[in-house]
Amino acid sequence: MGKELTSRAEDYSQWYNDLIIKGALADYSAVRGCMVIKPYGFALWENMRDVLDKMFKDTGHVNAYFPLFVPKSLFEAEEKNAEGFAKECAVVTHYRLKTDPDNKGKLIVDPEAKLEEELVVRPTSEAIIWSTYKGWIQSYRDLPLLINQWANVVRWEMRTRLFLRTTEFLWQEGHTAHATKNEAIEETKKMLEVYADFVENWMALPVIKGVKTPNERFAGAEDTYCIEALMQDGKALQAGTSHFLGQNFAKAFDVKFSDKENKLDYVWATSWGVSTRLIGGLVMAHSDDDGLILPPRIAPLQVVIVPIYKGDEQKTMIGEKVKIIIQQLKELGIRVKYDDNDNNRPGWKFAQYELQGVPVRMAIGARDLENNVVEIARRDTKEKQSTGIDGVAFYIKELLDEIQLHMYNRAKQFRDEHITKTDSWDEFVKLLDERGGFVSAHWDGTPETEEKIKELTKATIRCIPLNNEQENGKCILTGNPSVQRVLFARAY
Amino acid sequence: MGKELTSRAEDYSQWYNDLIIKGALADYSAVRGCMVIKPYGFALWENMRDVLDKMFKDTGHVNAYFPLFVPKSLFEAEEKNAEGFAKECAVVTHYRLKTDPDNKGKLIVDPEAKLEEELVVRPTSEAIIWSTYKGWIQSYRDLPLLINQWANVVRWEMRTRLFLRTTEFLWQEGHTAHATKNEAIEETKKMLEVYADFVENWMALPVIKGVKTPNERFAGAEDTYCIEALMQDGKALQAGTSHFLGQNFAKAFDVKFSDKENKLDYVWATSWGVSTRLIGGLVMAHSDDDGLILPPRIAPLQVVIVPIYKGDEQKTMIGEKVKIIIQQLKELGIRVKYDDNDNNRPGWKFAQYELQGVPVRMAIGARDLENNVVEIARRDTKEKQSTGIDGVAFYIKELLDEIQLHMYNRAKQFRDEHITKTDSWDEFVKLLDERGGFVSAHWDGTPETEEKIKELTKATIRCIPLNNEQENGKCILTGNPSVQRVLFARAY
Repeated sequence: MGKELTSRAEDYSQWYNDLIIKGALADYSAVRGCMVIKPYGFALWENMRDVLDKMFKDTGHVNAYFPLFVPKSLFEAEEKNAEGFAKECAVVTHYRLKTDPDNKGKLIVDPEAKLEEELVVRPTSEAIIWSTYKGWIQSYRDLPLLINQWANVVRWEMRTRLFLRTTEFLWQEGHTAHATKNEAIEETKKMLEVYADFVENWMALPVIKGVKTPNERFAGAEDTYCIEALMQDGKALQAGTSHFLGQNFAKAFDVKFSDKENKLDYVWATSWGVSTRLIGGLVMAHSDDDGLILPPRIAPLQVVIVPIYKGDEQKTMIGEKVKIIIQQLKELGIRVKYDDNDNNRPGWKFAQYELQGVPVRMAIGARDLENNVVEIARRDTKEKQSTGIDGVAFYIKELLDEIQLHMYNRAKQFRDEHITKTDSWDEFVKLLDERGGFVSAHWDGTPETEEKIKELTKATIRCIPLNNEQENGKCILTGNPSVQRVLFARAY
Repeated sequence: MGKELTSRAEDYSQWYNDLIIKGALADYSAVRGCMVIKPYGFALWENMRDVLDKMFKDTGHVNAYFPLFVPKSLFEAEEKNAEGFAKECAVVTHYRLKTDPDNKGKLIVDPEAKLEEELVVRPTSEAIIWSTYKGWIQSYRDLPLLINQWANVVRWEMRTRLFLRTTEFLWQEGHTAHATKNEAIEETKKMLEVYADFVENWMALPVIKGVKTPNERFAGAEDTYCIEALMQDGKALQAGTSHFLGQNFAKAFDVKFSDKENKLDYVWATSWGVSTRLIGGLVMAHSDDDGLILPPRIAPLQVVIVPIYKGDEQKTMIGEKVKIIIQQLKELGIRVKYDDNDNNRPGWKFAQYELQGVPVRMAIGARDLENNVVEIARRDTKEKQSTGIDGVAFYIKELLDEIQLHMYNRAKQFRDEHITKTDSWDEFVKLLDERGGFVSAHWDGTPETEEKIKELTKATIRCIPLNNEQENGKCILTGNPSVQRVLFARAY
C-alpha cells in the first residue's frame, strides 16, 4: 500500500506532521512559520467556524471587522498587553517597493516610503478595538457591546508547528464591553461554557474548565479562564481562553460611560478566542497509526461510498443503486461522496479515506447488490458490518451519532486515566516523565514556586479547575502550606 | 428630526459618507486609510459572502487559505504583476519591538530583529498561491485546481474612500489552474457570469459585461473580463473582475504538468475577485436623500415592526399579536426585528430604519389592532398601505420580491438612459461633463489615444462589451478608422 505514515510509538511528532500533510489538511509554505490550509483542512475549519458562529449569535453577539494594523502608539497604550506581545510582532515600516537600480527585474524597499509611525500586524486586537470603542460608548445605553471578529493574526514564534503554533493563524476574537464588573465576569464565564460545549460536543474532546495562575494569564487580563484538553502523548493543550480584562483597556484608551445617575465610570471588558490550533488538538487527540479520525459532526465528509466492480455493466448497476442511497443520505443532512474514480483501486481508496479520517465507509459490490446489502466500516473502531440496503441511510445516521459518542467517551476515558494525584515530589517527576497527563498536586500559590517547578520538570500549571475542592496540604515542591491542588502538565 | 444627512444635490460625496457613517455600515479607524466594518455593515457583507460562497461551491470550487505575507523574492517573480503592485505594498521589515531605553513605557522597533528578506503584505495572492501550486501539480490528473480564498488584502492607496477604496479590504480571490488554454478561458467567462448573476439578482444592480483594454488589465493578465455598474452621479464602478492569466504565473513559478501523452507543458491560470467595494456600489446606486435603500435579498434586516402605543396595556396587547406575526414571517425565512424599545418614539424609529435602508416597515397601533390591520411602508418608493393582519406574512414575502425587482428595474432604467452614443468630440466632452454615464464611441484601438482621452476628459474605457457589435467608424479623438464602439465613463 505504502501510505508511509510514521507510527505514534516510533515518533509521535513526526506521526502528527505526517497526518497533517498526507491527510491533506495543510501544507508548508514559502513563508517562514506560515502554513497553507488545504481545501480538506479548510472545509473542516469552515464546519467548526459555522457551528461556533451560530453559538456566538445565539448568545447575542454580532460580527464586525477591525483593521489588520495597529499603530505603534496604540499598541503600547496598555502596557502589560504591549509588553506581552512586543517580542512577537511583525512590523510594517514601509509602504512601497521600487525597482532595484542595480539589479534589473528586482525590487527593493523604497527608503523614501518610510512610515512616520510603524504599524504592528495585529497579534490580538484589544488595542485597535478599544481605541474604536472609545468613539462608540458614551452612556449605559450603548452597553453592552457584544462583538466578535473572525480574523487572521500574526505572532512571530521562534518554533512553529503546523496548526499548533504558526506565525499567522486564523481565529475568532470576541471583545465585549459592559457597565458592571459582574456582568463582564458573567460574560467571561458564559463564553468559556460555549467553548467547552463546542469542544466536547462537536470535537468529541473532553476538557477541564479552569482559571490560569497569574503567571499564565493573558497579558493585560485580570483573570484568564481556560479549557484544557489532553493529547494521546500525555501532553496538555490549551483549547480556548476567555479573559476578564477588568478596566485595564478602558483606562488605557480612556473609555468611560455615564450610568443612569449620570456618573462617569470606566467600562468593563472581556475578550475570548479560539483558533485553528484546535485542529491540531483534534488530530492529536483522536487519530491513530492509520491516519486521521474525525468526529462526524464536523468532518468535511461523513460517508464515502466505494463501488467494487468489474466492467462497466457492474459499475452502472451499482451506480444506479448508490444514487438512491445518496439521495436518502442527503435528505438526512449527511455529507456523502461517491468515489467511482477508475484510476484507483478500491484498496487504495480504502486506505486513502482511512488516512483522511472519514467516519464511515460504505463498500458495495455486484454480489452485495444481489443480496441487497452493503458493507459498512467505521473509522473509529475499524469494525466492519454487512447491513441491508433498505434503511441503510437511517442506519448510518445512527452510526454517526454512535461514533461521535464513542470518540468522546474514548478520549474521556483516556483523559480520566491520566489525571493522577500525588503528594510526593519524586512521584510527581516520575509521573510527568513516564505516565504524562495531568498531575494533581498541592502548590503554595507563589509564582516563584511555579517557575521553579517549570524549570525542573518543564511542567506548567495548566489551570486551577473551576469549583476546585478546597483541601489543606503541603506544596509538592516547597512543603509550604497549600489550600488546594492544581493541575500540572507538560503542554503544547 | 435631525438626521442631518447631506443631500445628493448638495454634495454627492458627502452624502455617501453620511450614509455609510450614520447608517452604521462602517466607521473611520485610527489606521490611515483603513476602516472598521460595523456590525450592521458586516451583516450585509456576511449575506453577500454566503450567497457568493454557495455560488462558487455550486460551480465546483473549494476554499483554502494561503499566507498573508509574500516573501519579496516570490513577489517579484512575475514581473508585470510585481511592477503593477510594487507602489502600493505594505512591507514587513522587522519581527520584534523592544522597550525604548530612552522613554519608559514606550516601544521601538528592535533593529536586531531585521528580516533577512522583507515580506510584502499581500495586495493579491497570485505569487504566493502559484509558488504553492508548483508542489501540488505534476500531472493532468491534478488538474483542474479550482480554489477560492476569502481574505484581507492591503494596497497602499494615496486617496481612500470608505468601502470604495481602503488600504485594507476584504475580498475573495479565486485562483484556478487548468490543462488547456480553452478550459481556462471558459473558467474566466464562467466566473464573470457568476458575478453578473450575483450583482444583478441579489444586489439589484444591472451590469455591463465586457473586456478591459490592455491599459486597464490586471497586472500579469492576458485578458481581464469585468462587470461595470453605474452610480447615480453618472460615474461607473467596476464591480468585479475575472482574469485569464495565460501561462504567465506558471512560467514565473515553473509550474508544469505532464499530459496524457506524458508531454510537459506549463499550466494555464485564471483569477477572479470581488470585494467589500461592492458595498460602496450598492449604497451609491440605490440610496436616496433619506438614507440607505438595501435590496431585500441581502438586507441584514428585511422587516422592522414598530408598535405605536400608549401605556403598558396597549404595548402588551400589540406585543402579543406581533409575536404571532413574527413567527409567521420567520417560518417564511424572513429576517425581522421587533423594536419595542421605550427610549425612542415611533417617529425617531421610522427615520432611523429609513436611514438604515430596511426594505419594509410595519407599524401597528391599538386602533389597528381593533380593525385587524397593520400599516406597511416600503423603503424604495416610500408608499404606505394598510393591509389585513391575516395573511400579512405572505403579503410581505411578495412585497419583498416586488421591492427587489423594482430596485433592479429602477437602476436599469437609469443605467439604460445613461448610455449615449456619439460621434462628435465636442458632444463626447459635453456628455461626460453634463450628463455622465457611459458614452459609446469609436476608438482607434491604440493605448496612446486611450491615454490622451483620459488626460483630456478623466474618462477611461470601462470595457469593450461582450459580443460587441462590429461597426466601421472613426475614432472620436483621432478620426482614425475604428471597427467598434467602446464604453467610456468617469469611474470610481
